[in-house]
Amino acid sequence: MNNYKNLLEPRSIAVVGVSEDAGRPGSQAVRALMSNGYTGTIYPVNPKYETFEGLKCYGSVADIEGDVDLVVIGVPAQGVLAVLESSAQKKVPFAVVLSGGFRESGPEGVLREEKMLAIARAAGMRIIGPNCLGFANIHSRVYAAFGSITREPKLEKGSVSLVTQSGGFGYSIALACAEAGIGFRHVIATGNESDVNTVQLIEALLDDDETHTIVAYIEGTNDGRALLEIGRKATARGKPILLWKGGVTEQGALAAASHTASMTGVYDFYRALFKQTGIVEIREIHEAVDFLKALESKKYPDNGGVAVMGVSGGSAIVFADAGEPQGLTLCELGNDTQQKLLAVVPNIGAVHNPIDLTAGYFSAANAQKLEAAVGATLEDPAVGSLCINLATTGVSGSLAAAQVLARIAASASKPILVFSSAPSVQIAEALRVFADAGIPVLPSPSRAAKAIAMLMRFKRTQSRILQMQEDEGLKVERASVPLSTAVGSRSSLSEVESKEMLRSIGIPVTTDLIVKGFDAALFDKVKAPLVVKIVSADIAHKTEIGGVKVGIRTAQELESAIEQVLANAQRHVPAAYIEGVLVSEMVTGGFELIAGVVKDPSFGPVVVVGAGGIYAEVLKDSACRIAPFGLPTAMEMLDELQCSVIMRGVRGALPLDVDAVARALVALSQFAWEQRGDIAEIDINPMFVLPHGVIAADALIVRG
Amino acid sequence: MNNYKNLLEPRSIAVVGVSEDAGRPGSQAVRALMSNGYTGTIYPVNPKYETFEGLKCYGSVADIEGDVDLVVIGVPAQGVLAVLESSAQKKVPFAVVLSGGFRESGPEGVLREEKMLAIARAAGMRIIGPNCLGFANIHSRVYAAFGSITREPKLEKGSVSLVTQSGGFGYSIALACAEAGIGFRHVIATGNESDVNTVQLIEALLDDDETHTIVAYIEGTNDGRALLEIGRKATARGKPILLWKGGVTEQGALAAASHTASMTGVYDFYRALFKQTGIVEIREIHEAVDFLKALESKKYPDNGGVAVMGVSGGSAIVFADAGEPQGLTLCELGNDTQQKLLAVVPNIGAVHNPIDLTAGYFSAANAQKLEAAVGATLEDPAVGSLCINLATTGVSGSLAAAQVLARIAASASKPILVFSSAPSVQIAEALRVFADAGIPVLPSPSRAAKAIAMLMRFKRTQSRILQMQEDEGLKVERASVPLSTAVGSRSSLSEVESKEMLRSIGIPVTTDLIVKGFDAALFDKVKAPLVVKIVSADIAHKTEIGGVKVGIRTAQELESAIEQVLANAQRHVPAAYIEGVLVSEMVTGGFELIAGVVKDPSFGPVVVVGAGGIYAEVLKDSACRIAPFGLPTAMEMLDELQCSVIMRGVRGALPLDVDAVARALVALSQFAWEQRGDIAEIDINPMFVLPHGVIAADALIVRG
Repeated sequence: MNNYKNLLEPRSIAVVGVSEDAGRPGSQAVRALMSNGYTGTIYPVNPKYETFEGLKCYGSVADIEGDVDLVVIGVPAQGVLAVLESSAQKKVPFAVVLSGGFRESGPEGVLREEKMLAIARAAGMRIIGPNCLGFANIHSRVYAAFGSITREPKLEKGSVSLVTQSGGFGYSIALACAEAGIGFRHVIATGNESDVNTVQLIEALLDDDETHTIVAYIEGTNDGRALLEIGRKATARGKPILLWKGGVTEQGALAAASHTASMTGVYDFYRALFKQTGIVEIREIHEAVDFLKALESKKYPDNGGVAVMGVSGGSAIVFADAGEPQGLTLCELGNDTQQKLLAVVPNIGAVHNPIDLTAGYFSAANAQKLEAAVGATLEDPAVGSLCINLATTGVSGSLAAAQVLARIAASASKPILVFSSAPSVQIAEALRVFADAGIPVLPSPSRAAKAIAMLMRFKRTQSRILQMQEDEGLKVERASVPLSTAVGSRSSLSEVESKEMLRSIGIPVTTDLIVKGFDAALFDKVKAPLVVKIVSADIAHKTEIGGVKVGIRTAQELESAIEQVLANAQRHVPAAYIEGVLVSEMVTGGFELIAGVVKDPSFGPVVVVGAGGIYAEVLKDSACRIAPFGLPTAMEMLDELQCSVIMRGVRGALPLDVDAVARALVALSQFAWEQRGDIAEIDINPMFVLPHGVIAADALIVRG
Repeated sequence: MNNYKNLLEPRSIAVVGVSEDAGRPGSQAVRALMSNGYTGTIYPVNPKYETFEGLKCYGSVADIEGDVDLVVIGVPAQGVLAVLESSAQKKVPFAVVLSGGFRESGPEGVLREEKMLAIARAAGMRIIGPNCLGFANIHSRVYAAFGSITREPKLEKGSVSLVTQSGGFGYSIALACAEAGIGFRHVIATGNESDVNTVQLIEALLDDDETHTIVAYIEGTNDGRALLEIGRKATARGKPILLWKGGVTEQGALAAASHTASMTGVYDFYRALFKQTGIVEIREIHEAVDFLKALESKKYPDNGGVAVMGVSGGSAIVFADAGEPQGLTLCELGNDTQQKLLAVVPNIGAVHNPIDLTAGYFSAANAQKLEAAVGATLEDPAVGSLCINLATTGVSGSLAAAQVLARIAASASKPILVFSSAPSVQIAEALRVFADAGIPVLPSPSRAAKAIAMLMRFKRTQSRILQMQEDEGLKVERASVPLSTAVGSRSSLSEVESKEMLRSIGIPVTTDLIVKGFDAALFDKVKAPLVVKIVSADIAHKTEIGGVKVGIRTAQELESAIEQVLANAQRHVPAAYIEGVLVSEMVTGGFELIAGVVKDPSFGPVVVVGAGGIYAEVLKDSACRIAPFGLPTAMEMLDELQCSVIMRGVRGALPLDVDAVARALVALSQFAWEQRGDIAEIDINPMFVLPHGVIAADALIVRG
């Protein structure tokens, strides 16, 4: 945060590009600073004016007598570079370039953006934008912005900070939050992100004490690895990040490419990011609103047991339906709890979960009973959180409930959420009581369920990250032999070399020998049944040309197989250089997986595992995680696979050694991370999981 | 509708259970009728009063001098039967029983509900309730209701009718709609549904000209079959039904069971219902709001091509992301269209889809340009619908856009939807213009995408239903031989009989013979390879006791196999009666499916098809449709299966005969429908799909 202090808390701001045209970005910025009561110094810059809005107007940034913490640039594109030069001369540490006409506008703009960066780098100046709406610090009334950020409705002060690559869409999220009563700290629209990017700003906001929750909209980042670390740090500290990733489908990515020319990145890897960091994915504007409301109380359920209590049976059913796929259970209440409820719930109600208080229960007359009912329920150890369905409860009933729940929430550690469908103008007083007590009120029971489930997942991931920092050895510091020492400069390793490498990191591989011809002693070296394969870098599709024979059990079969694959290779690819014939163990009785590593330009090495064979094509059944990781993460990956049902033993078949697969994935992830400078790809296909252990039957390591 | 005219448009209403206690349901109803200006006659009934609220008060319903169309009963449960007797004597055609204390409250209540029904049936009286909030006819200001329905905010007149089994939750939907400016015709909360049920009311509302769209919340119905027919009729007529099914998960169903003791029904069958009828499933309150807004214009896209136009690139990306999984495509615009757009879109914008109008474009000054841009886009044949992203556009820009779009919408047949995030109080004028023009305004681009996709699906299903009424022969009238004639009164058919039955309806089956022992001539009758199975009603698990042998190719093998299965049977289940040994063709080279029929108490016969063998357990890969149906529906089922990838030929394998599977499913559906009085279950496991044709290798028909 210190690094960005001059940007976000500037003591003085020069605004270049003010004009009598009130629509000009610079004019909007100055007016917003003044009307919102910014207390620092404002220096309008335009050589044509003596004064602007009653302030002294300067010919250039260099002419300003005092220090300038931040320059806001709203001149047309052609003029931006000169302003930057002048600002550099003045040693201004930060610039916000509102102007468009850069990378997004064609070759000339690309060049201009490069020059802009060169000026900034030379001067040690940092830039937000260009082509952005700018930012506002709502607490300090800094408006280095134009457009919707400066217009009505004004955002209220609060603890949410927003960083968005798309000004228009991102500010739509802010407006929806504002309408729901959520206040803001910083709102930053980053535009082209030539220099300062969303990930860096999220990191800066992590260190801002006034920011409790961060919401971000990004289309892409080339710094996914940093986001992984920042996300984990944020979750560990209990400062949630809500992230909307735009461009997650093919056509979405296409639209994003034409929008800001950002790489959108592979959505699967972002999903791994969410799971590994606790960063909360959002995919709807109202979801951001719901989640921010729910996070405001900073209370998290310890378990997935939820008690549902209220006056609408239908609402309880809808809650149950929405909660089940999210891992929430309408837990069974203890006998004690039910006994206590019996004393305060009418006979025709229900004291099991969902608790039916019966119509009209919420009233001042029932305040003590309600307090007893809620208290007893929260004391039940099976209850991790409580949802109160007010549903259509009217003005006085809602207020009575709010007062009781506010009293209880003051000392309760378990989250309490409320569903109310009464119009907010009617029950405004109750809503104020709820808000003051940090009790989120949601507009449907299903949305309440989703919010509780989010709280539960956040807490769970937080515990895992705190645990992991001890267990998983995320900081791999062991200096292993670099791949280049082992294999020189070749771009990929042979099957034998690849398998040797896997064996060296503890992944069992099939025994193979490369032979030039038949030798009866082979049976002593490799355990039958055998597979025979032609070995040649010039033959890509071995099976198709008859270069593979399987199920060989006798010396006679082996001799014939070796002769045949050699003959077939010579016939079909006469020019091929034949290294020899690979004789391997044939694996039987296991389940075929595919495991591997891909290196993503943004996230670095990512480990992928999936069902192999025909399942690979049918199920597209795979899971991935960013490397490196430990056993719990590897087990979680395997649990995501549909084929884990088979591995765990189906139709009375023996369960297979899932733990061994997890260990192999961990080894792969550590190896890929250590060798990240040198390995582009690892493919193990197939990797068999057996009743005891795993075995890699074929492997390829590609460097790069 | 005529049947329900006295209920929904009563000329006179007796309200029993009025009292000085304003909280009594009866008192609430009378006050609501009076304050809302009901123009018919109100007869308050309470022997203790001379007058109530200035109206003459009667001692009993029978004392009323004029005709009574409707009696509203709000007395405590113990008094309800007497009131019904009195109403029956007066020949009142309809009663709304608001009172609780019936089925939902234990054995005494069950008995009371039975007596209530007996009185009503004897008198030909129909009952809404008991244990319900009642109903309101907003147009005619009929309030036969209490609780939230009678409280502020008052619903506005409109064309949406709501029927709900849960008063509290259902009215929450109404309140959210009302807040979004949606008006209502009828709002009916049905409670216990002892007599009149949701399905019947939906049917009645279909014939109500003032109702354009029906929203329903149900937890269960025992008349799913009627809902199938009503749903199809509604869609064919262009009168959409939005249905929320509560209790779709295990814990949701459990909560529902304890709520109203309704059977919730199998969710899979409801999902089949949605697909087969065009009934629109809703699972969120805001979804109901969005969809109702979108349906109001009665414009539907002819195809999944959407043009997206606006001032926020991020919003377009979010639209694209949400649209893709829903089948919406950001279509390519024709050259013509792009040329026309070039003339009116700034250089730095984009004339391909999504169309980037550039920031600040929406303004009075650009009205003509916008009109040209929208006009050109809508003329493009690839464009089925248009989404305009106003995003954060402010007051004047929104109004300018609204005026242009309203002019165009007046004559356009393609739906236009708008995304705006500006606070509704600010852009109220623009929102009014949009509303008057029937242009839905949605609060996020993703919700706009989901609403357009819903319109597309509705239109598509409507076309299919209209086509189907010609093609699919849904009214099966052919009187086939009842099963009972063929097999007498046994509760299930043997494998041989079952297969014979399938053969008779055109589904190929494997050839089998039951033999007592080996006979060399068998090879002439059944084509090898063969399967040999013990046949005994006393042996459930044939494989486990060595009662099955496969892959028999020689006479010697066959002789030995027959001896072995007989010996194994005798050894393991000495008491079993052995009918003989089944010798069948062994099917090879196909893919194993499971097909069958289950008879649901609510929906009747439902056809299920899924992946067989190990896939059945791993994938849970199955699809179902309510019988009977034709080929297009059967093909749609198969397209839903993950394993359809395999059937269509994977890894260069020959494609299998998917058409033959579809024909078999149609035959099964027709047969199950014809014999619905006699068949409880059909299991074909496995049914092999081959490169040419299908073949049922084992089958079981259970009667009932």
